[in-house]
Amino acid sequence: MCRWMGWIGQPVLIQELLFDSPHGIVDQSLHARMGAEPTNGDGFGLGWYGAGEGPAVYRSVSPAWSDSNLRELAGHVESHLFLAHVRAAIGSPVQLTNCHPFRHGRWLFVHNGYVGDFHTLRRDLLWAVDPSLFAEIEGTTDTETLFHLALTFGLETDPVGALEAAVGLIEDTARRRGVEDLVQGTFGVTDGATLWTVRYATRGEPRSLYASTEPETIRTLYPDNPRLDRVRHGDRVVVSEPFSDLPGLWREIPPSTAVTVDAAGGFEERPFRPRVPAGVSAATHA
Amino acid sequence: MCRWMGWIGQPVLIQELLFDSPHGIVDQSLHARMGAEPTNGDGFGLGWYGAGEGPAVYRSVSPAWSDSNLRELAGHVESHLFLAHVRAAIGSPVQLTNCHPFRHGRWLFVHNGYVGDFHTLRRDLLWAVDPSLFAEIEGTTDTETLFHLALTFGLETDPVGALEAAVGLIEDTARRRGVEDLVQGTFGVTDGATLWTVRYATRGEPRSLYASTEPETIRTLYPDNPRLDRVRHGDRVVVSEPFSDLPGLWREIPPSTAVTVDAAGGFEERPFRPRVPAGVSAATHA
Amino acid sequence: MCRWMGWIGQPVLIQELLFDSPHGIVDQSLHARMGAEPTNGDGFGLGWYGAGEGPAVYRSVSPAWSDSNLRELAGHVESHLFLAHVRAAIGSPVQLTNCHPFRHGRWLFVHNGYVGDFHTLRRDLLWAVDPSLFAEIEGTTDTETLFHLALTFGLETDPVGALEAAVGLIEDTARRRGVEDLVQGTFGVTDGATLWTVRYATRGEPRSLYASTEPETIRTLYPDNPRLDRVRHGDRVVVSEPFSDLPGLWREIPPSTAVTVDAAGGFEERPFRPRVPAGVSAATHA
Amino acid sequence: MCRWMGWIGQPVLIQELLFDSPHGIVDQSLHARMGAEPTNGDGFGLGWYGAGEGPAVYRSVSPAWSDSNLRELAGHVESHLFLAHVRAAIGSPVQLTNCHPFRHGRWLFVHNGYVGDFHTLRRDLLWAVDPSLFAEIEGTTDTETLFHLALTFGLETDPVGALEAAVGLIEDTARRRGVEDLVQGTFGVTDGATLWTVRYATRGEPRSLYASTEPETIRTLYPDNPRLDRVRHGDRVVVSEPFSDLPGLWREIPPSTAVTVDAAGGFEERPFRPRVPAGVSAATHA
Repeated sequence: MCRWMGWIGQPVLIQELLFDSPHGIVDQSLHARMGAEPTNGDGFGLGWYGAGEGPAVYRSVSPAWSDSNLRELAGHVESHLFLAHVRAAIGSPVQLTNCHPFRHGRWLFVHNGYVGDFHTLRRDLLWAVDPSLFAEIEGTTDTETLFHLALTFGLETDPVGALEAAVGLIEDTARRRGVEDLVQGTFGVTDGATLWTVRYATRGEPRSLYASTEPETIRTLYPDNPRLDRVRHGDRVVVSEPFSDLPGLWREIPPSTAVTVDAAGGFEERPFRPRVPAGVSAATHA
Repeated sequence: MCRWMGWIGQPVLIQELLFDSPHGIVDQSLHARMGAEPTNGDGFGLGWYGAGEGPAVYRSVSPAWSDSNLRELAGHVESHLFLAHVRAAIGSPVQLTNCHPFRHGRWLFVHNGYVGDFHTLRRDLLWAVDPSLFAEIEGTTDTETLFHLALTFGLETDPVGALEAAVGLIEDTARRRGVEDLVQGTFGVTDGATLWTVRYATRGEPRSLYASTEPETIRTLYPDNPRLDRVRHGDRVVVSEPFSDLPGLWREIPPSTAVTVDAAGGFEERPFRPRVPAGVSAATHA
Repeated sequence: MCRWMGWIGQPVLIQELLFDSPHGIVDQSLHARMGAEPTNGDGFGLGWYGAGEGPAVYRSVSPAWSDSNLRELAGHVESHLFLAHVRAAIGSPVQLTNCHPFRHGRWLFVHNGYVGDFHTLRRDLLWAVDPSLFAEIEGTTDTETLFHLALTFGLETDPVGALEAAVGLIEDTARRRGVEDLVQGTFGVTDGATLWTVRYATRGEPRSLYASTEPETIRTLYPDNPRLDRVRHGDRVVVSEPFSDLPGLWREIPPSTAVTVDAAGGFEERPFRPRVPAGVSAATHA
Repeated sequence: MCRWMGWIGQPVLIQELLFDSPHGIVDQSLHARMGAEPTNGDGFGLGWYGAGEGPAVYRSVSPAWSDSNLRELAGHVESHLFLAHVRAAIGSPVQLTNCHPFRHGRWLFVHNGYVGDFHTLRRDLLWAVDPSLFAEIEGTTDTETLFHLALTFGLETDPVGALEAAVGLIEDTARRRGVEDLVQGTFGVTDGATLWTVRYATRGEPRSLYASTEPETIRTLYPDNPRLDRVRHGDRVVVSEPFSDLPGLWREIPPSTAVTVDAAGGFEERPFRPRVPAGVSAATHA
């Protein structure tokens, strides 16, 4: 399964969202409500932007709920943009190199869901990755391969378009290989300034994805909540399932939708339509 | 919470009980049904008797469900008597030295439950441990301290009596310190030939504990089950919660009861009655 | 053995001292030159002051040289004061709760060396720890016990005096127990503003300890070194063994000496003279 | 670097060779003498044949010298044939899936050395692996790829021939890619009955490799050594560097040599001559 969250906005101590929020992402590692499984205990990762060059990535194979180092970091690192991910492994080993977020230069990537029958498709898909990117693939997840396909198809220029191409190629490859259960999930990708998220499934209902509503609305709804009073214009949380049960705080991202969020308060939805990239093919196409 | 199991009987590949049994102990690490929490993902341990001197103990801070080494061991080690334990930590760190089973010479010890407000009592109780045993305490759990108290009070001569003394001392110390929530749980202790188990709570319903019924009964109930057909006289499983839902396979151990099981098919119940050991006191008594 | 370092001065990316310095502390985890053993691969810890409340502590049981998370943190966290420690375990388990620095409130503590025959003394010494501090002892090292003895004797008011009392009590207890090899090592303790360090051995040569010389001297000695040109008044490194081989950069701390370093450039040496604290005794004294 | 050892002969408690032998393989994890680096602390693995189906593999990312579970296993598992490997990572992550031995069905494989500039060659070489074997590649080491190339070229039928083909293909691919530093090292491969070992380098002196001499010779040389007196006909150790300094116990395997060892006392040397397999090519050949 997996659960993930992204924060974009004013710099905050990471623990405010990871630990201090009711039903935050660390609580979801043990007690997720909206997925097939309540437990996401097969490692986790936290990627953030702040001091130093590019994003930092802290990953662990321990469950997030018991990792004492995560509490230390979250309590002592501030960031204006970070992604956190708790993993429920399906098939691939529990190891750091299979923990999200994945990184390329300034970019971070997380995923909740799966590529159907990835074992069958992996070789074909890896072959479609740009050879210059191939060497940086360190793990064995579907997500890391999908990320490198998207990088191959121009993620750094057009993130949503590149994800449409990557998913399109995977769907096409799957069909050629006779794989029925194709692509499922939600994606989050960022360059440290903008956060792009996608909710999509080839068939059926995609995994859940929510974004917090406008800070102005939140403060109007809950004028006496001191915690929510600190929310500022431009602050936004995107998350697999809502943190709290307060009505009006969350909007569901519709299926087959990409959302672009920036720190100036921008929030833009557009359709997400996978397509096979022109002139590109996985090995099996030959 | 925690869940544990013990096997005594014919030598078996450990995986038959850990992985191949429906709702076995590894499944209970992720999906326990009878406890307060379904998840027991804060490490585990496996202690077995076989080749070499005394029992072996393999422990890990990983959840049992994802530990590849546990699958390897379970699939390649045979034993006539072993204890397995999956942990849900309450307060003390997730580290090997806090994983059950605990060992002293030929003896192994597991526990499901807790000593109420152990942080308050720890110093007093440690002080009551025989100084010659003190140096071998490596972790910080209530269980390890309780085990060493029982060793202090003669576990190697009279296991049930020593546990009654240890629990009695803890209850007495707790009362003197004003701690209300005293001792809760089930215990398993073995010397490699006999398995003693206890189900007890100072107050209220103790944690669940079950034993498999006589092999002869099992085969009569399920004459056509090839798996159960292999059960022999003297085989016995004791477990926090039953593996399968087949009616008639399991008997519940009553509260305040100690059970002695041996490999010759012996199965003896007796009352478990904690008492303060004569002439012994924890530090606070002085 | 162990090696440690402390930085006090202008805020720096931690990696500049951990990874970018020639023969920095991470290199010393694999290739220490001045100790009995070149390898300090039994875990490590990093404690720093910066964002959030009090110091953060990141610890790992992996060797420092291969821990990818340490590289991430070091490359993305800035601090004006931090302590790093690489461990060579002697007897006690390799686990987080045995990794330095140890923490109490705003205080951090590191140690290189040992308490002789600690297994024999541990129970006596633990008994001398203030009962209100006892519950926070989570590991089994001599260092953690020594730290809590010093806290018992007033570390937060008079760090050097409290360490003299703690070491004095240990030496006295050791003699009463017939232990010959007493206290050996170097200590570092800080409250986030001042760094106190000690070099001491009951007998013989203590472990090595060095401090960097005045920034003004450094820049005069090496006017053309761009790296050293960034050093400012008030910057100071204390370390078990010098980072680089450049002559004139390091001064050896003499044996039986305590040094007080602050961020204003203060550097004060005084004798370190252990003494049994008046009216206090370990259990064996009774 | 890495160090490895293999045992074939009478069933022994594994600890006799791992821990009880002077300068055994675990000691070599901390104090190797014949390699470029004394430390092999980046994880280890132990593969053995005994109870259960096929070989068991226990791997850990901890240094072998401090892994308490390894001591437990070694002290309680007997085997007539096992391989142990201590790792010094060069480039690829410290994770279980990069620890030797690698396994395929009944087969185990270990390697000490490297494929030069593997990052450059990895994609080409993976492409030459039989697609039906590709999905079982879980890590990122040169060794695992080399093993799967050898499986592709018939390792299960002709182990030495398949290794010659795999190394031949790698050398050819390297040359086509302009890589100068080609293949270096020693290999060990077994099916549980026979142990094949190879010592080879494309250029220069290969890594060291030794085999114990005939048991009859050993007992004649050291008639009064009780430890060596237990050695029986058919017992053989192959190891990267000799365990002890006793003269006459070890014979060096010559460069460019493959040795076949079996439990009946067979010991056969033959030249090892890599060749490009006919009709097979890595991707770059096209």
